[in-house]
Amino acid sequence: MTALTAELIDRLEQVVGAAGLVRDPQDMARYLSDWRNAYRGRAALVVRPASTDEVAAVVRLCHQAGVALVPQGGNTGLCGGSIPDASGEQIVLSLTRMTRVRQVDPQNDTITVEAGVVLQQLQEAAVAAGRMFPLSLGAEGSCTVGGNLATNAGGTAVLRYGNMRELTLGLEVVLPDGQVWNGLRGLRKDNTGYDLKQLFIGSEGTLGVITAAVLKLFPAVRSTTTAWVALPSSEASIELIGIMRGLCGDRLTGFELMSRQSVEFVLRHVAGCSDPFGERHPWYVLIELGDTQPDASLNVLLESGLGEAFERGIALDAVIASSGAQVKALWTMREGISEAQNHEGPSLKHDISVPVSCIPRFIDETDRQLLDRFPGVRIVCYGHVGDGNLHYNISKPVGSEDAPFKAQHEAIMQVIYDATARFNGSISAEHGLGQAKRAAAARYKDPLELALMRSIKQTLDPAGLFNPGKVL
Amino acid sequence: MTALTAELIDRLEQVVGAAGLVRDPQDMARYLSDWRNAYRGRAALVVRPASTDEVAAVVRLCHQAGVALVPQGGNTGLCGGSIPDASGEQIVLSLTRMTRVRQVDPQNDTITVEAGVVLQQLQEAAVAAGRMFPLSLGAEGSCTVGGNLATNAGGTAVLRYGNMRELTLGLEVVLPDGQVWNGLRGLRKDNTGYDLKQLFIGSEGTLGVITAAVLKLFPAVRSTTTAWVALPSSEASIELIGIMRGLCGDRLTGFELMSRQSVEFVLRHVAGCSDPFGERHPWYVLIELGDTQPDASLNVLLESGLGEAFERGIALDAVIASSGAQVKALWTMREGISEAQNHEGPSLKHDISVPVSCIPRFIDETDRQLLDRFPGVRIVCYGHVGDGNLHYNISKPVGSEDAPFKAQHEAIMQVIYDATARFNGSISAEHGLGQAKRAAAARYKDPLELALMRSIKQTLDPAGLFNPGKVL
Repeated sequence: MTALTAELIDRLEQVVGAAGLVRDPQDMARYLSDWRNAYRGRAALVVRPASTDEVAAVVRLCHQAGVALVPQGGNTGLCGGSIPDASGEQIVLSLTRMTRVRQVDPQNDTITVEAGVVLQQLQEAAVAAGRMFPLSLGAEGSCTVGGNLATNAGGTAVLRYGNMRELTLGLEVVLPDGQVWNGLRGLRKDNTGYDLKQLFIGSEGTLGVITAAVLKLFPAVRSTTTAWVALPSSEASIELIGIMRGLCGDRLTGFELMSRQSVEFVLRHVAGCSDPFGERHPWYVLIELGDTQPDASLNVLLESGLGEAFERGIALDAVIASSGAQVKALWTMREGISEAQNHEGPSLKHDISVPVSCIPRFIDETDRQLLDRFPGVRIVCYGHVGDGNLHYNISKPVGSEDAPFKAQHEAIMQVIYDATARFNGSISAEHGLGQAKRAAAARYKDPLELALMRSIKQTLDPAGLFNPGKVL
Repeated sequence: MTALTAELIDRLEQVVGAAGLVRDPQDMARYLSDWRNAYRGRAALVVRPASTDEVAAVVRLCHQAGVALVPQGGNTGLCGGSIPDASGEQIVLSLTRMTRVRQVDPQNDTITVEAGVVLQQLQEAAVAAGRMFPLSLGAEGSCTVGGNLATNAGGTAVLRYGNMRELTLGLEVVLPDGQVWNGLRGLRKDNTGYDLKQLFIGSEGTLGVITAAVLKLFPAVRSTTTAWVALPSSEASIELIGIMRGLCGDRLTGFELMSRQSVEFVLRHVAGCSDPFGERHPWYVLIELGDTQPDASLNVLLESGLGEAFERGIALDAVIASSGAQVKALWTMREGISEAQNHEGPSLKHDISVPVSCIPRFIDETDRQLLDRFPGVRIVCYGHVGDGNLHYNISKPVGSEDAPFKAQHEAIMQVIYDATARFNGSISAEHGLGQAKRAAAARYKDPLELALMRSIKQTLDPAGLFNPGKVL
């Protein structure tokens, strides 16, 4: 049974209308589990307000009634951050009806959007204004700006443009007591006290709900070039990115590392992929350069960097894409890894970061420890080298049963997280904590840092009604 | 009389040694007023710890004794943020003995420095590592990293590289109760909870004292070009920066606007400056492009942008510097404005920001209102167009007495801040609040935002011992 009274439901319906209330179990189902079906919850109700005023009224009513809220955007997260618990007493607060682009200001290079705008629509609105919004990730066709902000989303363009945090100038937030904080300022310099928006970005809906944001726009990129390079070691990728950054500066917009194992899974399972090289190589990188100039000599720069790499023995082979189709084929190899790995049976996926300089040692030491302790496991390591961010995923040994491998989950995770901690890294680089990594964060984070986080939570949400059971 | 007991002084001396204690009134003087002598305070003592452990021990002792601390770096601020009050009971906590560069990690593009490192030394350490640290401002020869962080410093390179906040990856902070938070992570992606470092950056020493930081390094810039352009209006500068950003992207590293009045003061008072043009023009911009490539065709880009500007009537005249001496001469014209204005008698200086697109209307409306209400005042308007940041300074009318002009200070400020508020701008873009703008912030900021700030302050510094009377 739910703690929701009929009166509260009536009052919520008065606020959001019949169209804003989802009560039918079948209609509610899509809000109660994530797209991978890794997390499932129950809820008393799904509320879908269509404006900031409606969000505020909903929050006020729930605050008065002591009912917990779970903010949800496109529900594409990987850590269960927007899935309610099993009690059936929480309300899912879906922002997906708040889809207005409130303002585009090309002279200020800003766009003001509501939380429910889908990332791809935001990208398209930027293009329509002759600009570019750089955040790009696999779920961009369905994830929302609000979710991107709540999780401080990353992706492949962080190397050049930063995380969602760096792309944000202002926020509008409904606080846990229903007050609306209007911090929708489009300013690049503002030093009039504490930068409150930073608290809400990345807090996964535990401190309030973001209803709108002012985001940065960038000049359109008018030329790009893409290369696929074979390397003798992961260490070579660190040297190569150093060469390329020094030469190209901000023209370096992508630098993705992949182990041979990652590429093999893609070649095996993703239709239309073929190895650009005749030989097998231990590591690969995908390099992308971009420029605002339409006729920038990016290939000259790229060849100059690769030339130095060949001389120093850092690069073993390379191809530069000569058509849009080739560019797409190379990116498909990179982006197909996660999906390809699913065809090889159960896997344990991790999203860690360490200082860039520590990547080779992290990989060497962790690979060795895992193979010693769990013989035969297949390590699928790939990621964003310039961000120190590795997706370090483990597939079960060939021909083994699923159950014993799954039983080793905790032990494998501990090896990986212990190594991350040794290198002063992060156990969640870009996916957040949600419910998935809450316990691990409690173990690996500095107790003082956890205490500070709890005191912030207590200050902003003393009743603990915003996304309880997540993050902290 | 001071509230400090002899016992506390003894215990502080045991922590920092005789070299770390300044008690002689003459020796203390330089810590008790700012370099412009605009703010003066008194203090019971100046303490100069040499390590994080010493800072923590000092803070613990003061916390136990209930003695207030005023953190201080290079003491180059403009808002009195590091000057103690008049009570003589506060202790100045000077970080200037904490000057170690703890680590340089070129592969991670990071440098770890202590709070007392002078900005120029940091820049030099970056160059020694084959990299660049971009923060640059007038006081760089004496301001410290700790002060840069506490005030979220800006300057001329924000256009391309962001404020100090965007340049920071990790912090070490001594909290008001003397606990040390080690957040010295050199990670570009870390989403394991609230981003606590953001609270301390820009909080002007009211929430704790920053003792060290991990900062980002960038590839060295190997070619630059600089131009001085005459414009018919401030609006033309907005169109011109749009053209240049679209063409040059991140190569645009400087774009500074100056009114004719600003330039006239420089020509009159700064030795060796001469007008690059035969005619007088209403507005000027200084444009700087930079590239990591040593032989980048920056002049071609610049001329292409200027060509379009001439065609559209946005630019009236232009010179491109043809030697290092000319580059220096042009920057001297820009950087000499503040000093030149001091030769014209008393002035009222403001550091505001508005959305870039609002700059022309802000200037037109505010100019008109001021000249209507205060006939003859001379408006010295210049600033960082791409950041929406104007230094909008007012000199007294020619030949008038000082006193009546000074008596109009509040009224003039109100016109300017009211206009800033109308455009949803900031009354302190890059100088912070300190004690100078505390009252104005209380008037112009959203009461809810002020309440949130106070609740954060209460949470982190419940005893109110960290820089009381500043910011809030």
